[in-house]
Amino acid sequence: MKLATIRTAVGTRAVKVDGDRLVDLGASDVGAFLALGNWQELAGSVDGPTYDAATADFAPLVPQPSKVVCVGLNYRNHIQEMGRELPRYPTLFSKFADTLVGAYDDIVRPGETDEFDWEVELAVVVGRQVRRATTDQAEAAIAGFTVFNDITCRDWQFRTREWLQGKNWDSTTPVGPYLVTPDELPGGVRPEVGVRLLVDGKVMQEDTTADLLFDPVALVEYVSTMVRLNPGDLIATGTPGGVGHARKPPQYLVGGETVVTEIDGVGRLENRVVKEGVTV
Amino acid sequence: MKLATIRTAVGTRAVKVDGDRLVDLGASDVGAFLALGNWQELAGSVDGPTYDAATADFAPLVPQPSKVVCVGLNYRNHIQEMGRELPRYPTLFSKFADTLVGAYDDIVRPGETDEFDWEVELAVVVGRQVRRATTDQAEAAIAGFTVFNDITCRDWQFRTREWLQGKNWDSTTPVGPYLVTPDELPGGVRPEVGVRLLVDGKVMQEDTTADLLFDPVALVEYVSTMVRLNPGDLIATGTPGGVGHARKPPQYLVGGETVVTEIDGVGRLENRVVKEGVTV
Repeated sequence: MKLATIRTAVGTRAVKVDGDRLVDLGASDVGAFLALGNWQELAGSVDGPTYDAATADFAPLVPQPSKVVCVGLNYRNHIQEMGRELPRYPTLFSKFADTLVGAYDDIVRPGETDEFDWEVELAVVVGRQVRRATTDQAEAAIAGFTVFNDITCRDWQFRTREWLQGKNWDSTTPVGPYLVTPDELPGGVRPEVGVRLLVDGKVMQEDTTADLLFDPVALVEYVSTMVRLNPGDLIATGTPGGVGHARKPPQYLVGGETVVTEIDGVGRLENRVVKEGVTV
Repeated sequence: MKLATIRTAVGTRAVKVDGDRLVDLGASDVGAFLALGNWQELAGSVDGPTYDAATADFAPLVPQPSKVVCVGLNYRNHIQEMGRELPRYPTLFSKFADTLVGAYDDIVRPGETDEFDWEVELAVVVGRQVRRATTDQAEAAIAGFTVFNDITCRDWQFRTREWLQGKNWDSTTPVGPYLVTPDELPGGVRPEVGVRLLVDGKVMQEDTTADLLFDPVALVEYVSTMVRLNPGDLIATGTPGGVGHARKPPQYLVGGETVVTEIDGVGRLENRVVKEGVTV
Protein backbone atom coordinates (compact mmCIF):
# COMPACT_ATOMS: atom_id res chain seq x y z
CA MET A 1 0.00 0.00 0.00
CA LYS A 2 1.17 3.51 -0.85
CA LEU A 3 -0.10 6.64 0.90
CA ALA A 4 0.66 10.28 0.24
CA THR A 5 -0.26 13.82 1.25
CA ILE A 6 -1.31 16.13 -1.58
CA ARG A 7 -2.16 19.80 -1.75
CA THR A 8 -5.67 20.61 -2.95
CA ALA A 9 -7.76 23.77 -3.21
CA VAL A 10 -9.16 23.01 0.26
CA GLY A 11 -5.84 22.28 1.94
CA THR A 12 -3.76 19.11 2.16
CA ARG A 13 -5.39 15.66 2.00
CA ALA A 14 -4.16 12.17 2.83
CA VAL A 15 -4.62 9.83 -0.13
CA LYS A 16 -4.07 6.20 -1.05
CA VAL A 17 -2.45 5.41 -4.38
CA ASP A 18 -4.71 3.26 -6.58
CA GLY A 19 -3.04 2.97 -9.96
CA ASP A 20 -3.22 6.40 -11.58
CA ARG A 21 -5.85 7.58 -9.09
CA LEU A 22 -5.36 8.95 -5.60
CA VAL A 23 -8.24 8.13 -3.24
CA ASP A 24 -9.05 10.59 -0.43
CA LEU A 25 -8.63 8.96 2.98
CA GLY A 26 -10.76 11.42 4.94
CA ALA A 27 -7.83 12.99 6.80
CA SER A 28 -5.83 16.14 6.21
CA ASP A 29 -2.46 14.43 5.86
CA VAL A 30 -0.71 11.10 6.34
CA GLY A 31 0.25 11.99 9.93
CA ALA A 32 -3.37 12.69 10.88
CA PHE A 33 -4.46 9.53 9.06
CA LEU A 34 -1.97 7.31 10.92
CA ALA A 35 -3.11 8.87 14.20
CA LEU A 36 -6.60 7.45 13.62
CA GLY A 37 -5.23 4.13 14.85
CA ASN A 38 -6.98 1.58 12.62
CA TRP A 39 -5.50 3.15 9.51
CA GLN A 40 -4.72 -0.12 7.74
CA GLU A 41 -8.33 -1.21 7.96
CA LEU A 42 -9.59 2.25 6.94
CA ALA A 43 -7.25 2.40 3.96
CA GLY A 44 -8.32 -1.08 2.88
CA SER A 45 -11.99 -0.13 2.57
CA VAL A 46 -11.64 3.49 1.49
CA ASP A 47 -14.10 4.85 -1.07
CA GLY A 48 -13.60 8.63 -1.03
CA PRO A 49 -13.24 11.26 -3.76
CA THR A 50 -10.36 10.68 -6.15
CA TYR A 51 -7.65 12.84 -7.69
CA ASP A 52 -5.52 12.34 -10.77
CA ALA A 53 -2.07 11.09 -9.73
CA ALA A 54 -0.41 12.61 -12.80
CA THR A 55 -1.29 16.17 -11.87
CA ALA A 56 -1.16 15.87 -8.07
CA ASP A 57 0.88 18.36 -6.05
CA PHE A 58 2.71 16.43 -3.33
CA ALA A 59 3.10 18.06 0.09
CA PRO A 60 5.71 16.85 2.57
CA LEU A 61 4.55 13.29 3.33
CA VAL A 62 3.92 14.33 6.94
CA PRO A 63 3.79 18.14 7.06
CA GLN A 64 4.13 18.54 10.85
CA PRO A 65 5.59 15.45 12.51
CA SER A 66 6.25 15.86 16.23
CA LYS A 67 9.77 14.56 15.60
CA VAL A 68 12.16 14.29 12.71
CA VAL A 69 15.02 12.26 14.14
CA CYS A 70 18.11 11.91 11.97
CA VAL A 71 20.96 9.45 12.24
CA GLY A 72 24.61 10.27 11.59
CA LEU A 73 27.06 7.76 10.10
CA ASN A 74 25.11 4.53 9.61
CA TYR A 75 26.35 2.85 6.40
CA ARG A 76 28.87 0.20 7.44
CA ASN A 77 31.03 0.33 4.29
CA HIS A 78 31.21 4.08 4.43
CA ILE A 79 32.22 4.14 8.11
CA GLN A 80 34.92 1.55 7.48
CA GLU A 81 36.25 3.20 4.32
CA MET A 82 36.66 6.37 6.40
CA GLY A 83 38.90 4.34 8.72
CA ARG A 84 36.53 4.68 11.67
CA GLU A 85 35.44 2.00 14.06
CA LEU A 86 31.83 0.91 13.96
CA PRO A 87 30.06 2.97 16.64
CA ARG A 88 28.29 1.30 19.51
CA TYR A 89 25.40 3.79 19.54
CA PRO A 90 23.67 5.71 16.76
CA THR A 91 24.49 9.42 16.57
CA LEU A 92 21.23 11.37 16.58
CA PHE A 93 20.27 14.90 15.67
CA SER A 94 16.97 16.41 14.63
CA LYS A 95 15.26 18.62 12.10
CA PHE A 96 12.33 20.91 12.81
CA ALA A 97 9.14 20.19 10.85
CA ASP A 98 9.44 23.60 9.19
CA THR A 99 12.46 22.31 7.23
CA LEU A 100 10.28 19.95 5.17
CA VAL A 101 9.10 20.41 1.58
CA GLY A 102 7.29 18.22 -0.92
CA ALA A 103 8.74 15.60 -3.24
CA TYR A 104 8.84 17.85 -6.31
CA ASP A 105 9.09 21.27 -4.68
CA ASP A 106 11.91 23.64 -5.49
CA ILE A 107 14.64 23.82 -2.85
CA VAL A 108 15.69 27.41 -2.31
CA ARG A 109 19.41 27.67 -1.59
CA PRO A 110 19.81 30.22 1.23
CA GLY A 111 22.03 33.16 0.45
CA GLU A 112 23.85 32.59 3.76
CA THR A 113 25.54 29.33 2.76
CA ASP A 114 28.35 28.52 0.34
CA GLU A 115 28.28 24.78 1.04
CA PHE A 116 24.82 23.49 0.22
CA ASP A 117 24.95 19.68 0.11
CA TRP A 118 22.80 16.57 -0.41
CA GLU A 119 22.20 13.32 1.53
CA VAL A 120 19.92 10.53 0.29
CA GLU A 121 18.24 8.74 3.19
CA LEU A 122 15.64 6.03 3.75
CA ALA A 123 13.16 7.40 6.31
CA VAL A 124 11.00 5.37 8.68
CA VAL A 125 7.43 6.58 9.17
CA VAL A 126 6.11 5.73 12.63
CA GLY A 127 2.56 4.37 12.65
CA ARG A 128 1.66 4.20 16.32
CA GLN A 129 2.77 5.67 19.62
CA VAL A 130 5.54 3.69 21.30
CA ARG A 131 7.90 4.20 24.23
CA ARG A 132 10.64 1.78 25.18
CA ALA A 133 9.56 -0.47 22.33
CA THR A 134 10.64 -4.11 22.36
CA THR A 135 11.78 -5.51 19.02
CA ASP A 136 8.27 -6.81 18.32
CA GLN A 137 6.71 -3.50 19.26
CA ALA A 138 9.21 -1.59 17.14
CA GLU A 139 8.46 -3.77 14.12
CA ALA A 140 4.73 -3.19 14.60
CA ALA A 141 5.25 0.55 15.04
CA ILE A 142 6.73 0.98 11.56
CA ALA A 143 3.95 2.11 9.22
CA GLY A 144 6.28 2.23 6.27
CA PHE A 145 9.12 4.03 4.53
CA THR A 146 9.72 7.09 2.43
CA VAL A 147 12.52 9.01 0.68
CA PHE A 148 14.30 11.86 2.45
CA ASN A 149 17.01 14.24 1.23
CA ASP A 150 18.80 15.59 4.30
CA ILE A 151 19.92 18.83 2.66
CA THR A 152 22.70 20.42 4.72
CA CYS A 153 24.59 23.70 4.89
CA ARG A 154 28.07 22.31 5.70
CA ASP A 155 29.58 25.67 6.64
CA TRP A 156 26.85 26.16 9.25
CA GLN A 157 27.00 22.50 10.32
CA PHE A 158 30.62 22.94 11.38
CA ARG A 159 30.40 26.45 12.86
CA THR A 160 29.99 24.91 16.32
CA ARG A 161 30.24 21.43 17.76
CA GLU A 162 26.55 20.65 17.25
CA TRP A 163 25.26 19.87 13.76
CA LEU A 164 21.78 21.35 14.26
CA GLN A 165 22.36 24.69 12.57
CA GLY A 166 23.60 23.09 9.37
CA LYS A 167 20.55 20.86 9.23
CA ASN A 168 17.64 23.16 9.97
CA TRP A 169 17.16 25.61 7.13
CA ASP A 170 13.56 26.44 6.41
CA SER A 171 11.85 24.50 3.60
CA THR A 172 14.97 22.75 2.32
CA THR A 173 14.34 19.05 3.08
CA PRO A 174 12.17 17.13 0.60
CA VAL A 175 10.33 14.09 1.94
CA GLY A 176 7.93 11.78 0.09
CA PRO A 177 6.28 11.28 -2.27
CA TYR A 178 4.85 8.09 -0.71
CA LEU A 179 4.67 6.08 2.44
CA VAL A 180 5.24 2.52 1.24
CA THR A 181 4.18 -0.22 3.64
CA PRO A 182 6.81 -2.83 4.60
CA ASP A 183 4.98 -5.72 2.88
CA GLU A 184 5.85 -4.14 -0.49
CA LEU A 185 9.59 -4.16 0.14
CA PRO A 186 12.27 -6.88 0.14
CA GLY A 187 13.26 -7.27 3.78
CA GLY A 188 9.97 -5.84 5.08
CA VAL A 189 10.58 -3.63 8.15
CA ARG A 190 14.33 -4.03 7.50
CA PRO A 191 14.27 -3.17 3.80
CA GLU A 192 17.13 -4.19 1.54
CA VAL A 193 16.81 -1.70 -1.26
CA GLY A 194 19.10 0.39 -3.41
CA VAL A 195 19.42 4.11 -2.61
CA ARG A 196 20.94 6.70 -4.89
CA LEU A 197 21.19 10.40 -5.51
CA LEU A 198 21.82 12.13 -8.81
CA VAL A 199 22.75 15.73 -9.51
CA ASP A 200 21.87 16.75 -13.08
CA GLY A 201 21.72 13.09 -14.02
CA LYS A 202 25.11 12.14 -12.56
CA VAL A 203 25.07 9.51 -9.81
CA MET A 204 26.67 11.00 -6.69
CA GLN A 205 25.58 8.47 -4.06
CA GLU A 206 24.68 4.80 -4.50
CA ASP A 207 24.39 2.08 -1.88
CA THR A 208 21.97 -0.40 -0.35
CA THR A 209 20.08 -0.18 2.92
CA ALA A 210 21.19 -3.77 3.57
CA ASP A 211 24.41 -2.09 4.73
CA LEU A 212 22.79 -0.08 7.54
CA LEU A 213 24.54 -0.60 10.87
CA PHE A 214 21.44 0.36 12.87
CA ASP A 215 18.40 -0.88 10.97
CA PRO A 216 14.94 0.75 11.15
CA VAL A 217 13.70 -1.57 13.90
CA ALA A 218 16.81 -1.00 16.02
CA LEU A 219 16.40 2.75 15.57
CA VAL A 220 12.76 2.71 16.70
CA GLU A 221 13.83 0.73 19.76
CA TYR A 222 16.72 3.07 20.53
CA VAL A 223 14.93 6.39 20.04
CA SER A 224 11.82 5.21 21.88
CA THR A 225 13.98 4.32 24.88
CA MET A 226 14.29 8.02 25.55
CA VAL A 227 11.15 9.59 24.16
CA ARG A 228 7.77 8.52 22.87
CA LEU A 229 7.41 8.21 19.11
CA ASN A 230 4.07 9.35 17.69
CA PRO A 231 2.18 8.45 14.50
CA GLY A 232 3.76 10.36 11.63
CA ASP A 233 7.15 10.81 13.29
CA LEU A 234 10.07 10.36 10.92
CA ILE A 235 13.44 8.72 11.48
CA ALA A 236 15.93 9.40 8.69
CA THR A 237 18.35 6.49 8.78
CA GLY A 238 21.57 8.16 7.62
CA THR A 239 23.35 8.60 4.30
CA PRO A 240 26.01 6.59 2.45
CA GLY A 241 29.23 7.94 0.94
CA GLY A 242 29.25 10.40 -1.93
CA VAL A 243 28.10 13.65 -0.40
CA GLY A 244 29.49 16.81 -1.98
CA HIS A 245 31.49 17.87 1.04
CA ALA A 246 33.61 14.69 1.02
CA ARG A 247 34.45 14.88 -2.70
CA LYS A 248 37.86 15.96 -3.88
CA PRO A 249 37.46 18.73 -4.72
CA PRO A 250 34.27 19.38 -2.76
CA GLN A 251 31.17 19.96 -4.83
CA TYR A 252 28.14 21.90 -3.66
CA LEU A 253 24.74 22.90 -4.99
CA VAL A 254 24.91 26.46 -6.26
CA GLY A 255 21.47 26.79 -7.84
CA GLY A 256 20.13 25.63 -11.19
CA GLU A 257 20.71 21.91 -10.58
CA THR A 258 18.10 19.17 -10.51
CA VAL A 259 18.58 16.69 -7.66
CA VAL A 260 16.99 13.26 -7.90
CA THR A 261 16.84 11.20 -4.73
CA GLU A 262 15.56 7.68 -5.21
CA ILE A 263 15.10 4.46 -3.32
CA ASP A 264 14.12 1.31 -5.18
CA GLY A 265 10.52 0.39 -4.50
CA VAL A 266 10.04 3.35 -2.17
CA GLY A 267 10.00 6.40 -4.40
CA ARG A 268 11.75 9.25 -6.05
CA LEU A 269 12.18 12.91 -5.20
CA GLU A 270 13.01 15.39 -7.94
CA ASN A 271 13.85 18.91 -6.86
CA ARG A 272 15.28 21.91 -8.62
CA VAL A 273 17.73 23.95 -6.59
CA VAL A 274 16.92 27.63 -6.87
CA LYS A 275 19.09 30.53 -5.81
CA GLU A 276 17.43 32.70 -3.23
CA GLY A 277 15.82 35.74 -4.80
CA VAL A 278 16.01 34.28 -8.31
CA THR A 279 12.70 33.69 -10.06
CA VAL A 280 12.71 30.69 -12.39
CA MET B 1 1.46 40.88 32.29
CA LYS B 2 1.75 37.22 33.26
CA LEU B 3 0.19 34.39 31.27
CA ALA B 4 0.07 30.67 32.00
CA THR B 5 -1.37 27.37 30.78
CA ILE B 6 -3.32 25.37 33.34
CA ARG B 7 -4.92 21.94 33.34
CA THR B 8 -8.68 21.89 33.91
CA ALA B 9 -11.38 19.24 33.74
CA VAL B 10 -11.98 20.21 30.10
CA GLY B 11 -8.35 20.24 29.01
CA THR B 12 -5.67 22.89 29.21
CA ARG B 13 -6.56 26.60 29.16
CA ALA B 14 -4.53 29.75 28.60
CA VAL B 15 -5.00 32.20 31.49
CA LYS B 16 -3.89 35.65 32.54
CA VAL B 17 -2.72 36.16 36.11
CA ASP B 18 -4.83 38.75 37.93
CA GLY B 19 -3.73 38.77 41.57
CA ASP B 20 -4.86 35.48 43.08
CA ARG B 21 -7.21 34.79 40.17
CA LEU B 22 -6.44 33.30 36.76
CA VAL B 23 -8.65 34.64 33.98
CA ASP B 24 -9.48 32.37 31.03
CA LEU B 25 -8.15 33.81 27.76
CA GLY B 26 -10.41 31.79 25.46
CA ALA B 27 -7.58 29.62 24.06
CA SER B 28 -6.38 26.14 24.91
CA ASP B 29 -2.84 27.14 25.86
CA VAL B 30 -0.39 30.04 25.72
CA GLY B 31 0.95 28.90 22.34
CA ALA B 32 -2.53 28.94 20.79
CA PHE B 33 -3.24 32.29 22.45
CA LEU B 34 -0.08 33.92 21.06
CA ALA B 35 -0.95 32.56 17.61
CA LEU B 36 -4.14 34.68 17.65
CA GLY B 37 -1.92 37.63 16.73
CA ASN B 38 -3.47 40.52 18.64
CA TRP B 39 -2.90 38.76 21.96
CA GLN B 40 -1.75 41.84 23.88
CA GLU B 41 -5.00 43.63 23.08
CA LEU B 42 -7.07 40.51 23.81
CA ALA B 43 -5.34 39.93 27.15
CA GLY B 44 -5.84 43.58 28.09
CA SER B 45 -9.62 43.41 27.77
CA VAL B 46 -10.19 39.80 28.84
CA ASP B 47 -13.26 39.01 30.93
CA GLY B 48 -13.55 35.21 30.90
CA PRO B 49 -14.20 32.60 33.60
CA THR B 50 -11.72 32.63 36.47
CA TYR B 51 -9.78 29.98 38.39
CA ASP B 52 -8.13 30.10 41.79
CA ALA B 53 -4.37 30.61 41.35
CA ALA B 54 -3.60 28.85 44.64
CA THR B 55 -5.02 25.51 43.52
CA ALA B 56 -4.19 25.71 39.79
CA ASP B 57 -2.40 22.82 38.09
CA PHE B 58 0.21 24.28 35.74
CA ALA B 59 0.81 22.54 32.41
CA PRO B 60 3.99 23.18 30.41
CA LEU B 61 3.72 26.88 29.53
CA VAL B 62 3.51 25.92 25.85
CA PRO B 63 2.62 22.23 25.64
CA GLN B 64 3.51 21.68 21.95
CA PRO B 65 5.82 24.39 20.62
CA SER B 66 6.99 23.81 17.05
CA LYS B 67 10.54 24.37 18.28
CA VAL B 68 12.43 24.19 21.55
CA VAL B 69 15.84 25.58 20.63
CA CYS B 70 18.53 25.34 23.31
CA VAL B 71 21.83 27.17 23.54
CA GLY B 72 25.07 25.63 24.79
CA LEU B 73 27.70 27.63 26.70
CA ASN B 74 26.39 31.19 26.91
CA TYR B 75 27.40 32.66 30.31
CA ARG B 76 30.53 34.73 29.74
CA ASN B 77 32.05 34.22 33.21
CA HIS B 78 31.50 30.50 33.03
CA ILE B 79 33.09 30.17 29.59
CA GLN B 80 36.13 32.17 30.70
CA GLU B 81 36.54 30.34 34.00
CA MET B 82 36.64 27.12 31.99
CA GLY B 83 39.60 28.60 30.10
CA ARG B 84 37.75 28.72 26.80
CA GLU B 85 37.62 31.53 24.31
CA LEU B 86 34.32 33.30 23.80
CA PRO B 87 32.65 31.61 20.84
CA ARG B 88 31.75 33.55 17.75
CA TYR B 89 28.47 31.71 17.19
CA PRO B 90 25.95 30.21 19.61
CA THR B 91 25.98 26.41 19.87
CA LEU B 92 22.43 25.16 19.28
CA PHE B 93 20.63 21.92 19.97
CA SER B 94 16.97 21.11 20.40
CA LYS B 95 14.43 19.34 22.57
CA PHE B 96 11.27 17.69 21.35
CA ALA B 97 8.01 19.08 22.77
CA ASP B 98 7.35 15.69 24.39
CA THR B 99 10.19 16.37 26.85
CA LEU B 100 8.21 19.18 28.55
CA VAL B 101 6.39 19.01 31.90
CA GLY B 102 4.65 21.57 34.10
CA ALA B 103 6.20 23.88 36.68
CA TYR B 104 5.33 21.69 39.68
CA ASP B 105 5.16 18.27 38.05
CA ASP B 106 7.28 15.40 39.27
CA ILE B 107 10.30 14.62 37.14
CA VAL B 108 10.68 10.89 36.69
CA ARG B 109 14.34 9.87 36.59
CA PRO B 110 14.68 7.24 33.84
CA GLY B 111 16.10 3.92 34.93
CA GLU B 112 18.51 4.06 31.97
CA THR B 113 20.64 6.93 33.32
CA ASP B 114 23.11 7.20 36.20
CA GLU B 115 23.92 10.85 35.54
CA PHE B 116 20.71 12.85 35.80
CA ASP B 117 21.59 16.54 35.99
CA TRP B 118 20.06 20.04 36.21
CA GLU B 119 20.45 23.30 34.24
CA VAL B 120 18.61 26.52 35.13
CA GLU B 121 17.83 28.58 32.03
CA LEU B 122 15.97 31.73 31.09
CA ALA B 123 13.74 30.87 28.15
CA VAL B 124 12.44 33.25 25.49
CA VAL B 125 8.83 32.77 24.37
CA VAL B 126 8.31 33.82 20.77
CA GLY B 127 5.16 35.86 20.17
CA ARG B 128 4.93 36.14 16.40
CA GLN B 129 6.26 34.43 13.32
CA VAL B 130 9.62 35.77 12.15
CA ARG B 131 12.26 34.73 9.64
CA ARG B 132 15.58 36.54 9.20
CA ALA B 133 14.50 39.00 11.87
CA THR B 134 16.28 42.35 12.08
CA THR B 135 17.11 43.56 15.59
CA ASP B 136 13.87 45.56 15.73
CA GLN B 137 11.84 42.61 14.49
CA ALA B 138 13.53 40.26 16.95
CA GLU B 139 12.74 42.60 19.84
CA ALA B 140 9.11 42.79 18.74
CA ALA B 141 8.93 39.00 18.34
CA ILE B 142 9.70 38.34 22.00
CA ALA B 143 6.39 37.86 23.82
CA GLY B 144 8.14 37.30 27.13
CA PHE B 145 10.21 35.01 29.28
CA THR B 146 9.82 31.92 31.40
CA VAL B 147 11.84 29.50 33.54
CA PHE B 148 13.29 26.32 32.05
CA ASN B 149 15.21 23.47 33.64
CA ASP B 150 17.18 21.72 30.90
CA ILE B 151 17.34 18.34 32.66
CA THR B 152 20.03 16.21 31.06
CA CYS B 153 21.23 12.59 31.15
CA ARG B 154 24.99 13.24 30.96
CA ASP B 155 25.92 9.63 30.23
CA TRP B 156 23.65 9.66 27.18
CA GLN B 157 24.69 13.20 26.21
CA PHE B 158 28.28 12.02 25.78
CA ARG B 159 27.60 8.60 24.21
CA THR B 160 28.10 10.14 20.76
CA ARG B 161 29.29 13.47 19.44
CA GLU B 162 25.79 14.98 19.34
CA TRP B 163 24.13 16.06 22.58
CA LEU B 164 20.55 15.31 21.48
CA GLN B 165 20.16 11.95 23.18
CA GLY B 166 21.12 13.32 26.58
CA LYS B 167 18.62 16.13 26.26
CA ASN B 168 15.48 14.43 25.01
CA TRP B 169 14.04 12.19 27.67
CA ASP B 170 10.28 12.11 27.77
CA SER B 171 8.55 14.41 30.29
CA THR B 172 11.70 15.52 32.10
CA THR B 173 11.96 19.25 31.30
CA PRO B 174 9.85 21.62 33.43
CA VAL B 175 8.91 24.95 31.86
CA GLY B 176 6.78 27.72 33.34
CA PRO B 177 4.86 28.60 35.37
CA TYR B 178 4.39 31.98 33.65
CA LEU B 179 5.15 33.92 30.54
CA VAL B 180 6.22 37.32 31.90
CA THR B 181 6.16 40.17 29.40
CA PRO B 182 9.38 42.17 28.94
CA ASP B 183 7.92 45.41 30.38
CA GLU B 184 7.86 43.75 33.82
CA LEU B 185 11.61 43.00 33.82
CA PRO B 186 14.72 45.13 34.30
CA GLY B 187 16.38 45.26 30.90
CA GLY B 188 13.13 44.48 29.04
CA VAL B 189 13.78 42.17 26.07
CA ARG B 190 17.37 41.82 27.34
CA PRO B 191 16.52 41.04 30.96
CA GLU B 192 19.11 41.50 33.69
CA VAL B 193 17.83 39.15 36.35
CA GLY B 194 19.25 36.67 38.83
CA VAL B 195 18.95 32.97 38.01
CA ARG B 196 19.51 30.16 40.47
CA LEU B 197 18.90 26.49 41.06
CA LEU B 198 18.62 24.73 44.40
CA VAL B 199 18.66 21.03 45.17
CA ASP B 200 17.02 20.25 48.53
CA GLY B 201 17.46 23.90 49.51
CA LYS B 202 21.15 24.11 48.65
CA VAL B 203 22.11 26.65 45.98
CA MET B 204 23.88 24.82 43.13
CA GLN B 205 23.77 27.48 40.41
CA GLU B 206 23.56 31.25 40.76
CA ASP B 207 24.27 33.93 38.18
CA THR B 208 22.69 36.82 36.30
CA THR B 209 21.37 36.93 32.75
CA ALA B 210 23.28 40.22 32.36
CA ASP B 211 26.25 37.90 31.73
CA LEU B 212 24.74 36.21 28.65
CA LEU B 213 27.09 36.33 25.67
CA PHE B 214 24.22 35.96 23.15
CA ASP B 215 21.23 37.83 24.55
CA PRO B 216 17.60 36.93 23.76
CA VAL B 217 17.33 39.40 20.90
CA ALA B 218 20.56 38.19 19.32
CA LEU B 219 19.33 34.60 19.62
CA VAL B 220 16.02 35.34 17.91
CA GLU B 221 17.95 37.03 15.10
CA TYR B 222 20.40 34.12 14.80
CA VAL B 223 17.92 31.25 14.91
CA SER B 224 15.47 33.00 12.59
CA THR B 225 18.23 33.38 10.01
CA MET B 226 17.91 29.67 9.36
CA VAL B 227 14.32 28.81 10.17
CA ARG B 228 11.05 30.56 10.90
CA LEU B 229 10.13 30.99 14.54
CA ASN B 230 6.46 30.59 15.35
CA PRO B 231 4.27 31.90 18.20
CA GLY B 232 4.94 29.77 21.27
CA ASP B 233 8.38 28.61 20.20
CA LEU B 234 10.91 28.51 23.02
CA ILE B 235 14.59 29.42 23.05
CA ALA B 236 16.39 28.30 26.22
CA THR B 237 19.33 30.66 26.58
CA GLY B 238 21.91 28.39 28.23
CA THR B 239 22.99 27.65 31.78
CA PRO B 240 25.65 29.13 34.08
CA GLY B 241 28.23 27.15 36.08
CA GLY B 242 27.26 24.80 38.88
CA VAL B 243 25.78 21.82 37.12
CA GLY B 244 26.21 18.47 38.88
CA HIS B 245 28.43 16.97 36.19
CA ALA B 246 31.12 19.66 36.62
CA ARG B 247 31.27 19.36 40.44
CA LYS B 248 34.14 17.62 42.17
CA PRO B 249 33.05 15.01 42.89
CA PRO B 250 30.19 15.00 40.38
CA GLN B 251 26.72 15.11 41.89
CA TYR B 252 23.59 13.78 40.22
CA LEU B 253 19.89 13.51 40.94
CA VAL B 254 19.10 10.02 42.14
CA GLY B 255 15.44 10.43 43.14
CA GLY B 256 13.85 11.89 46.23
CA GLU B 257 15.26 15.40 45.80
CA THR B 258 13.31 18.61 45.33
CA VAL B 259 14.75 20.89 42.65
CA VAL B 260 13.88 24.59 42.68
CA THR B 261 14.68 26.58 39.55
CA GLU B 262 14.07 30.28 39.88
CA ILE B 263 14.59 33.50 37.98
CA ASP B 264 13.98 36.82 39.72
CA GLY B 265 10.79 38.44 38.48
CA VAL B 266 10.12 35.61 36.04
CA GLY B 267 9.08 32.67 38.18
CA ARG B 268 9.93 29.54 40.05
CA LEU B 269 9.74 25.84 39.22
CA GLU B 270 9.59 23.31 42.02
CA ASN B 271 9.86 19.68 41.04
CA ARG B 272 10.36 16.46 42.94
CA VAL B 273 12.64 13.94 41.33
CA VAL B 274 11.05 10.51 41.40
CA LYS B 275 12.73 7.20 40.67
CA GLU B 276 11.13 5.37 37.81
CA GLY B 277 8.67 2.77 39.05
CA VAL B 278 8.56 4.22 42.56
CA THR B 279 5.20 5.56 43.73
CA VAL B 280 5.45 8.51 46.09
